[in-house]
Amino acid sequence: MNESTPTRRRPGRPPRADGARADTRAALLRQGMAMLTERGFNAVGIDEVLRAVGVPKGSFYYYFASKDDFGLAALQAYAGYFAAKLDRHFLDTGLPPLARIEAFIADADAGMARHGYRRGCLVGNLGQEMSALSEPFRARLEAVFADWQARLTACLQAAVAAGELAADTDCARWSAFFWTGWEGAVLRARLAGSGAPLRLFGEFFLAALPRPAA
Amino acid sequence: MNESTPTRRRPGRPPRADGARADTRAALLRQGMAMLTERGFNAVGIDEVLRAVGVPKGSFYYYFASKDDFGLAALQAYAGYFAAKLDRHFLDTGLPPLARIEAFIADADAGMARHGYRRGCLVGNLGQEMSALSEPFRARLEAVFADWQARLTACLQAAVAAGELAADTDCARWSAFFWTGWEGAVLRARLAGSGAPLRLFGEFFLAALPRPAA
Repeated sequence: MNESTPTRRRPGRPPRADGARADTRAALLRQGMAMLTERGFNAVGIDEVLRAVGVPKGSFYYYFASKDDFGLAALQAYAGYFAAKLDRHFLDTGLPPLARIEAFIADADAGMARHGYRRGCLVGNLGQEMSALSEPFRARLEAVFADWQARLTACLQAAVAAGELAADTDCARWSAFFWTGWEGAVLRARLAGSGAPLRLFGEFFLAALPRPAA
Repeated sequence: MNESTPTRRRPGRPPRADGARADTRAALLRQGMAMLTERGFNAVGIDEVLRAVGVPKGSFYYYFASKDDFGLAALQAYAGYFAAKLDRHFLDTGLPPLARIEAFIADADAGMARHGYRRGCLVGNLGQEMSALSEPFRARLEAVFADWQARLTACLQAAVAAGELAADTDCARWSAFFWTGWEGAVLRARLAGSGAPLRLFGEFFLAALPRPAA
């Protein structure tokens, strides 16, 4: 949209407020992602999130329809953040494809270390709490895993094309195997307060991938 | 102890009550294990557990010192149940060692299917909730994983001895890799409402194990 295009706004709502509302909503989601990745959905109260951001208690429903709506929006924000992280590594043509996967694992480890291994993966946390969550969460969580799986599959296919992996590698199934185990590694890293489980899982996964016949 | 031996009891507590207390405590733990493996520690209230077993609300502290005490006792009961399951498979000399691991995976799948894939692993659930749990849980969860790891290591060593695996297989690290990923597979199975992630993880794990040179 160029500068001369008149913008359409809903009547009765001043332009400034829309921007402020979006900023506050984004701040609540950032805070929510941090708290939910650390403690999960059930253990975190909306009031704590509002207090941490300095938003008056009564105004929550100005930003979100419900706690579920807030959780789903936080999940969507997290999925966007994580997809960008995956693209940064898996599409990094400066490295051979398998080294990109190593770089992602090292980055994930560094990210967890930065928060003292207290924060896990929002997708894993919500997945573990599934039975206490509403149905829309399940569909959304499955969709996020499917998205991650597709991104890693493409990177493994690039490794096949580069001759790093055997030509008949079933990239989609290897990718499914990776993400299945990865959430377990994140859980163990939090429990151990150490990145060793992430590194162990990454090392064994990469070593197990089928190489081309010599 | 034979019948003529006088039994020593604490004064003022009738013999019957001790047995009844132990029975009720065991029933509360069984119910707790079922509810906690389905919904986690934070989401389950003590009142629900008491109600499900038909124990009066006020009498909880007759059985447990606190909710933490209850959770730790449920974890211990679960660890005992699971160790027996592992022994039943990993020490089954009627099967070659690697087939015992396959049998365990099939049993775990059948167990999850029996409850519609709603119940996960109590150790995984509590591990995921770690940051909201007290410190004694962490030590206990780590100890349970170390125990499972030792049992699978022994089974892999039996596979080496039987010539199913390469002589230089690092059984302890392969076992650590298995349990790291396994919790992720349990999480995905709950989310998908299907045993496919358990079977995928088991299949790839077994295929990746180093075989002896032909």
